[in-house]
Amino acid sequence: MKKPLVGIIMGSDSDLPVMKEAAEVLEYFEIEYEMTIVSAHRTPERMFDYARSCADRGLEVIIAGAGGAAHLPGMVASITCLPVIGVPVKTSALQGLDSLLSIVQMPAGVPVATVAINNAKNAGLLAAEIIGIKIPEVRNKIKEYKEKMRREVEEKARNLEEKGYREYLNV
Amino acid sequence: MKKPLVGIIMGSDSDLPVMKEAAEVLEYFEIEYEMTIVSAHRTPERMFDYARSCADRGLEVIIAGAGGAAHLPGMVASITCLPVIGVPVKTSALQGLDSLLSIVQMPAGVPVATVAINNAKNAGLLAAEIIGIKIPEVRNKIKEYKEKMRREVEEKARNLEEKGYREYLNV
Amino acid sequence: MKKPLVGIIMGSDSDLPVMKEAAEVLEYFEIEYEMTIVSAHRTPERMFDYARSCADRGLEVIIAGAGGAAHLPGMVASITCLPVIGVPVKTSALQGLDSLLSIVQMPAGVPVATVAINNAKNAGLLAAEIIGIKIPEVRNKIKEYKEKMRREVEEKARNLEEKGYREYLNV
Amino acid sequence: MKKPLVGIIMGSDSDLPVMKEAAEVLEYFEIEYEMTIVSAHRTPERMFDYARSCADRGLEVIIAGAGGAAHLPGMVASITCLPVIGVPVKTSALQGLDSLLSIVQMPAGVPVATVAINNAKNAGLLAAEIIGIKIPEVRNKIKEYKEKMRREVEEKARNLEEKGYREYLNV
Amino acid sequence: MKKPLVGIIMGSDSDLPVMKEAAEVLEYFEIEYEMTIVSAHRTPERMFDYARSCADRGLEVIIAGAGGAAHLPGMVASITCLPVIGVPVKTSALQGLDSLLSIVQMPAGVPVATVAINNAKNAGLLAAEIIGIKIPEVRNKIKEYKEKMRREVEEKARNLEEKGYREYLNV
Amino acid sequence: MKKPLVGIIMGSDSDLPVMKEAAEVLEYFEIEYEMTIVSAHRTPERMFDYARSCADRGLEVIIAGAGGAAHLPGMVASITCLPVIGVPVKTSALQGLDSLLSIVQMPAGVPVATVAINNAKNAGLLAAEIIGIKIPEVRNKIKEYKEKMRREVEEKARNLEEKGYREYLNV
Amino acid sequence: MKKPLVGIIMGSDSDLPVMKEAAEVLEYFEIEYEMTIVSAHRTPERMFDYARSCADRGLEVIIAGAGGAAHLPGMVASITCLPVIGVPVKTSALQGLDSLLSIVQMPAGVPVATVAINNAKNAGLLAAEIIGIKIPEVRNKIKEYKEKMRREVEEKARNLEEKGYREYLNV
Amino acid sequence: MKKPLVGIIMGSDSDLPVMKEAAEVLEYFEIEYEMTIVSAHRTPERMFDYARSCADRGLEVIIAGAGGAAHLPGMVASITCLPVIGVPVKTSALQGLDSLLSIVQMPAGVPVATVAINNAKNAGLLAAEIIGIKIPEVRNKIKEYKEKMRREVEEKARNLEEKGYREYLNV
Repeated sequence: MKKPLVGIIMGSDSDLPVMKEAAEVLEYFEIEYEMTIVSAHRTPERMFDYARSCADRGLEVIIAGAGGAAHLPGMVASITCLPVIGVPVKTSALQGLDSLLSIVQMPAGVPVATVAINNAKNAGLLAAEIIGIKIPEVRNKIKEYKEKMRREVEEKARNLEEKGYREYLNV
Repeated sequence: MKKPLVGIIMGSDSDLPVMKEAAEVLEYFEIEYEMTIVSAHRTPERMFDYARSCADRGLEVIIAGAGGAAHLPGMVASITCLPVIGVPVKTSALQGLDSLLSIVQMPAGVPVATVAINNAKNAGLLAAEIIGIKIPEVRNKIKEYKEKMRREVEEKARNLEEKGYREYLNV
Repeated sequence: MKKPLVGIIMGSDSDLPVMKEAAEVLEYFEIEYEMTIVSAHRTPERMFDYARSCADRGLEVIIAGAGGAAHLPGMVASITCLPVIGVPVKTSALQGLDSLLSIVQMPAGVPVATVAINNAKNAGLLAAEIIGIKIPEVRNKIKEYKEKMRREVEEKARNLEEKGYREYLNV
Repeated sequence: MKKPLVGIIMGSDSDLPVMKEAAEVLEYFEIEYEMTIVSAHRTPERMFDYARSCADRGLEVIIAGAGGAAHLPGMVASITCLPVIGVPVKTSALQGLDSLLSIVQMPAGVPVATVAINNAKNAGLLAAEIIGIKIPEVRNKIKEYKEKMRREVEEKARNLEEKGYREYLNV
Repeated sequence: MKKPLVGIIMGSDSDLPVMKEAAEVLEYFEIEYEMTIVSAHRTPERMFDYARSCADRGLEVIIAGAGGAAHLPGMVASITCLPVIGVPVKTSALQGLDSLLSIVQMPAGVPVATVAINNAKNAGLLAAEIIGIKIPEVRNKIKEYKEKMRREVEEKARNLEEKGYREYLNV
Repeated sequence: MKKPLVGIIMGSDSDLPVMKEAAEVLEYFEIEYEMTIVSAHRTPERMFDYARSCADRGLEVIIAGAGGAAHLPGMVASITCLPVIGVPVKTSALQGLDSLLSIVQMPAGVPVATVAINNAKNAGLLAAEIIGIKIPEVRNKIKEYKEKMRREVEEKARNLEEKGYREYLNV
Repeated sequence: MKKPLVGIIMGSDSDLPVMKEAAEVLEYFEIEYEMTIVSAHRTPERMFDYARSCADRGLEVIIAGAGGAAHLPGMVASITCLPVIGVPVKTSALQGLDSLLSIVQMPAGVPVATVAINNAKNAGLLAAEIIGIKIPEVRNKIKEYKEKMRREVEEKARNLEEKGYREYLNV
Repeated sequence: MKKPLVGIIMGSDSDLPVMKEAAEVLEYFEIEYEMTIVSAHRTPERMFDYARSCADRGLEVIIAGAGGAAHLPGMVASITCLPVIGVPVKTSALQGLDSLLSIVQMPAGVPVATVAINNAKNAGLLAAEIIGIKIPEVRNKIKEYKEKMRREVEEKARNLEEKGYREYLNV
């Protein structure tokens, strides 16, 4: 088995239904990943250990998802030298605006590569793009992925143009 | 010299003009404090050491100020068992709304006692109220402080009532 | 029966499903509490009486929850010398942003220790941390509570690592 | 001297440069008013006394201005049976959005007639409209005031139409 | 039959489930009212006619509810000399924040007495308070209403204190 | 068959339930339209081709709907010389506030005529108003449409006035 | 002199420094316009007369700017059948967010073509694009205008590439 | 001269004072970069050409800054397979909230690695971290950079601890 290149972590297992989409994308691109729960607030030492060791264990990119006062992505980024991708998880009261600002508004010196609220899929894609600067096959797969997206939209467009919206919506 | 009871920390010395008001209040109440810079993002290990040792060193309350994706109060709260008061520092782009949400929206299990944006004075007062549950003299001083505030407002009110707003504003 | 140390109040019984979590936490820490309804707007005199007498009755911390133009925590804080913890209750239109700002943005001189929207559990924990500066057993219990949280997360993490996300989510 | 019909109160004398516009409007309409400082947070008893006695002293409308966690208008409204007009005063961090929500989002049972941020002039006008349902001369003056506003705008419109915007802006 | 003193208008019959609470309050206070639909945007001339004639027809207060770019309260206020109470109706996308700002942020010269989002009940109460400056019986009824609110809260409080939250929530 | 005058495009077929209302309005006004899917992000070249050719194919107005970081309306507007109407589609996390700001806040030089969140019906009406400056019959139909709206509101108003709100709501 | 095709109106002459940019753009495109002050709130009848007569006087597009509870664009749109372009003018407290929502969130049936906050230049350009569907010379000028913008950016780009950012910023 | 690895682009030369900080960071890390102006809205074809060719020209990461309805980062990301870092530039009306949401809220399939408002320095650092997965020397330099940040904070902390805040602020 190959060593994982991407570490996917989240603050709570309640984030898993969102964060699994990052894993699915990496599987699609055949990029090895590991996935676990690391809570900045409830397991701060575990978070430190994870962040301090992740580069040495061969990981190249970290994807970290968290909600509310979401400190996990930024804290990991403060410790590791790897690029860290932050996924703001939607919250029940403020809809993830709190998560987004807690992740994206990092001070100068410690960036977090933030994606859209709940968009772990894009976190996986961004990780693939980053891996792609080192592994040409991954970049080629991204090209194909973009081609596939294009074709799917065009297929739907043709479908809508032919059928009209009434029939299309009835399908 | 007595041992400090309150630790005032901030993420950057640019927060000092705001955070010094917490110190001034504690001086007013004759509560010993210590003050230093601890950046969650630029000195994560220092932050850990600080949070792990603060209770053992005899501190009773921590006041932590930070801006933007403000992780310092929450991270310290995740490590120590002391009450942590968070001061959201105003930011240039989002006016401190980012700081406020990053500090107050903590997940269940790790509270931060959040005060108003830039209101380090209230953080000092809240620390005094907390110390006051242990040290009766401090609570008595808070009573006097409230009395003083009351008298100052009443003095101004009398002044305004007598002079009228035109003369009052010209003073 | 021991005298209560914490007073839990709320503006309306519709806040009770949220506020009961504060009570549950205090029960967990074996801290005596009392709980009642005190509306700043519909029972202003009752609120005054409550705030004026709470310290004399031996309470050490007040937890006050309210929604919308949430004045209860701030008004109680203006009258008592005890630390007051405010719980912004989520509202149907503005999701609790109104409650949060009404509670946290207190003027200099009268702090309210604000926790996250609907997070009465954290209010209970913060009260315990504050009581803990006076009663060492409480602080010890908080240490254990943090340990327990840590172990629970680590248990879940191990579980996820072993099973993978597909099996984990099916459980 | 006639008894005042309108009470103008504010939480702090720093609100006076805003709140004086309410007084100016009432002077324009020759409506007697009184003006003083009443802080919900720093003089809660004074606030109670004011709110409890204002109707008996012959006041018909209260105008209350406050900023941040602005509790003054709502607390006075909770005690008196008079209509209370709230003026959200602009704040340095959140621009008065906090003041606005703290004043307007009152729970069912206790309304505050809220005007725009910093718009104490409109508070004075609204007070006049309310007085106008009892005193016909005041309503007539409001009609004239509206006429005057109309004529001023039409004058400016004519001016702009004749001169063109270049010359108009140079004046 | 007595002539109505309050006019309740709304931009659309979809606002009726919200606005009927204003009517219920007025019925409670035995204040005659009329209620109809007047859309600023779809029946601008009807709106003009309504606003121009409402004072002459003996109305003393107008309650106007609208959602989104809510222009009805402000436009009626621009034409009539009566006090106009605005009810921001909750909207599906922006939750009524758009309605609130469209109603409350009126320019100097034309106030709208704005109440909380969807809080037509408070609009009715505010109308009663305003009528109460002219008709003493109404003010007396408001006093009783406040008494009743107080007793209801105290009843619930006693209930909660006696039963504890577990039993109370099971009822 | 006549050539279409209006092009309705959307970023994804998930926008179709919203965007079809634009088509329905155009059908009502008997304005020929075409409708298809053009994704700025997944089919950027298709978007370019569409925007570059739409004027030459005889279209007069483009209606473009998109959600989140909604770039389609602005990008089409940057390429074509036709007026482009943007429809911000409501999103699950931020309710369409992201879509609205992404569409309306265009830089000087490239306007997008933005309508309300999810209000594709108004996009269709605006397109008709624009077509109406060239084709008098369309403007006449808009007059009739406004008349019809007016009559419908007046009908409902009469209905409500006669029945009262209780009976009206039971219908 | 040719008859004006575009009417530029604003709620107050304080909006003129913003709104004049619409006029400047129309002058650039040699489109006749008229410009005046029409306040929905202070001159409601003038607003009605303007909106009712503008189409008959030969105007094809209305540009309306207003701030705060900005009702002018929507009210004019409710009366006329011409396309109405709304310019949200920046406000001192809420930065124009209130103006934007008051203008863009129009109910179904009455669209306003909203541009960015303070972006009267884009209102002028949008008016030109609309006029361009009737007058081919205007559309040609828009093409040239876009060409000119393109060349200016490319010129600056070349400049920056050659000089580097240090020298460029010193110029 | 070595080929550039990072392309820095911005929508307007008014973004240069912000975006130059990305260049300065890259210079610090001795990473070759190129910098130019590419406007999605005013030079859409140039943007297309840039995005289509940047990978072939050997670039590994794109940093794109833009303000308002900021489409540049997302559009480039839709065309290239390289990782794209987006810098939301602060705007005068909405302070960059519009820029942030326009950049970060990208739909599934096309990620943009978003950093804080105006934080081009972090964009440069993130680019270095990404380059660092391929070039070990860069990662080593990042480690040193973090060390340097740490030492600087510790130096300031020592300074503050020794001098106290009064003397520190006078320096």
